[in-house]
Amino acid sequence: MSAFSRFTPLINALPATVPFVGPEAIERNRGLEVKARIGANENGFGPAPSVLQAIAEAAPSTWKYNDPENFALKQALAAHLGCRPENLAIGEGIDSLLGQIVRLVIEPGFSVVTSLGAYPTFNFHVTGHGGRLVTVPYVDDREDLDGLLDAVRRENPPLVYFANPDNPMGSWWNADSVVAFALAVPETSLLILDEAYCETAPAGSTPAIEALLDRPNVIRTRTFSKAYGLAGARIGYAISTPGTAAAFDKIRNHFGMARISTAAALAALADQDYLGKVIDRIAGSRERIAQIARDNGLTPLPSATNFVAIDCGRDGAYAKSIVDGLMDYGVFIRMPGVAPLNRCIRVSAGPESDMALLEQALPLVLKSL
Amino acid sequence: MSAFSRFTPLINALPATVPFVGPEAIERNRGLEVKARIGANENGFGPAPSVLQAIAEAAPSTWKYNDPENFALKQALAAHLGCRPENLAIGEGIDSLLGQIVRLVIEPGFSVVTSLGAYPTFNFHVTGHGGRLVTVPYVDDREDLDGLLDAVRRENPPLVYFANPDNPMGSWWNADSVVAFALAVPETSLLILDEAYCETAPAGSTPAIEALLDRPNVIRTRTFSKAYGLAGARIGYAISTPGTAAAFDKIRNHFGMARISTAAALAALADQDYLGKVIDRIAGSRERIAQIARDNGLTPLPSATNFVAIDCGRDGAYAKSIVDGLMDYGVFIRMPGVAPLNRCIRVSAGPESDMALLEQALPLVLKSL
Repeated sequence: MSAFSRFTPLINALPATVPFVGPEAIERNRGLEVKARIGANENGFGPAPSVLQAIAEAAPSTWKYNDPENFALKQALAAHLGCRPENLAIGEGIDSLLGQIVRLVIEPGFSVVTSLGAYPTFNFHVTGHGGRLVTVPYVDDREDLDGLLDAVRRENPPLVYFANPDNPMGSWWNADSVVAFALAVPETSLLILDEAYCETAPAGSTPAIEALLDRPNVIRTRTFSKAYGLAGARIGYAISTPGTAAAFDKIRNHFGMARISTAAALAALADQDYLGKVIDRIAGSRERIAQIARDNGLTPLPSATNFVAIDCGRDGAYAKSIVDGLMDYGVFIRMPGVAPLNRCIRVSAGPESDMALLEQALPLVLKSL
Repeated sequence: MSAFSRFTPLINALPATVPFVGPEAIERNRGLEVKARIGANENGFGPAPSVLQAIAEAAPSTWKYNDPENFALKQALAAHLGCRPENLAIGEGIDSLLGQIVRLVIEPGFSVVTSLGAYPTFNFHVTGHGGRLVTVPYVDDREDLDGLLDAVRRENPPLVYFANPDNPMGSWWNADSVVAFALAVPETSLLILDEAYCETAPAGSTPAIEALLDRPNVIRTRTFSKAYGLAGARIGYAISTPGTAAAFDKIRNHFGMARISTAAALAALADQDYLGKVIDRIAGSRERIAQIARDNGLTPLPSATNFVAIDCGRDGAYAKSIVDGLMDYGVFIRMPGVAPLNRCIRVSAGPESDMALLEQALPLVLKSL
């Protein structure tokens, strides 16, 4: 393939690999149809009726660019969270914000601390900016706060990533431990506290907003993609000090947010009743997934998220054969990427029709292996 | 403001300025209401009814991430344009693609050639990656192809930007001149040929797709934001060789596209009848703007875009007082940022109700100055 001859050395050295293969690509590549879409930690319970109404109302004005200051959404989020609009930055999903954060602090060769097997898209951005990943193994299927802190003290990295609750294992720490960890991270290291799944986490596991709001070296990231059911709308936000939050304005795509998406996020935030109902449904679906796992001799792990990691008791090749085998029945799931986490498969919560397909297919797959 | 202490030197050196202030910010800051939104080169004729239908149908599935490979949109665009899907990269508007292109080729201190007064968001991205802008003045309100080529030969820059038709002046070159220019740019310089406004340009001004399709150092950028009336949806695309187009995959936000936006773009592309009607309306509105200008003793410039630059015959301060004065009447327009272009104001095409407001307000503003 003939390509431009003068990309930067960093770009030329980057692999063409992508963080995730989408279910649509699997369908195309394998000639199969996804019937139960429970692999990407989307929320099959869908957005609220009030959100669909807001989308319909916003549609005719999609000829207008979105307000580049995201004024209304920042106001609404600030009121909801109990902070100031100046504490917030808005982006096209947490993925986009992660990319921006990496760009803010990483030059080629700089070290970045994260957990071994944590969010691949973060690693994608780190590698894309020439950062050097320093990984800390999980302990008992949880990210290792002490180990992360040791690595931070040893490496003095500009950037540290920690997710609570965790993806891909669904595990979590209590709020006190998270706050103690965040306060122990030296002010020369920027901590990303990824809270993509905080809405589905048990009480007492998410630090209060004010607990870390005065820390310029802490950025908490959240999203409308999970509990709010708006993954396709691409709306994430970051919470930090006004000074740190303002740095995004130096580099972000100011007109990058979709207008309909913003209207959807505003409506979703306003409909906390619906959110509460969905969280209950997710909890019920987690139980259903766990029971299906147990019925098949597998071990579901506790989960604070909208998915359940299931320990299949053998190695990554075995888990992968289950993932691939389920897709033969149209059941799309995923699995962690590295050992020992990859002894597990990862199943997202979803409606009963999806659960029924999983329940039917899993024993057939296991028997065939 | 307390900010993280260890942003990169490049980030610390960046100004907090943004490329454009949105009309919503003007409303908030000045306590005024925008009644005629004809400043951002949006398309007030709006998207097609078939697009609104597609949005309504896509809304319930916005809980799903968009296909990260943008397979369907690439297929449809390739069929429409007469190229292969591999020739295409999709992004969250041209703005996002411009940021990615800059990142692919620019390291701090590298030179970038563009026209003095051309698209500010491109400059924002260049500065954001530490690039050094080398600007070539317009000649007769057109970007100067010979001057750009001289600068390219002198500087050997990794990156060159040229828009045809041009923004903010609305001027254009014929296709033969553009092709000759593109072929003369050395293969060590990547040429961005920004064709955001190509749909509204006169016949013979846009090179055939195949004319530059084998040039690894040429990327043509296009958008659904202008003629297609989908600025708020954020869908742009780049056309180049497969090798160059593939480079975007190394750094882009793979799950960055909104799902409803993609559905809207597919429907808009399929409805070329509606596009044709809108292009006629835009042409009619350009005539209307030009007549209003002439009626007030001002000089409209010829335009190949969905806006008209109007020469107000004096300096930038005078033009700015017209821009500000029109906003007192709720008429939002913009103007070029640098001399001598800033003797002009820039008015976007729009429905007759907007034109009537402009027609009413402009003489009152001019009389008051």
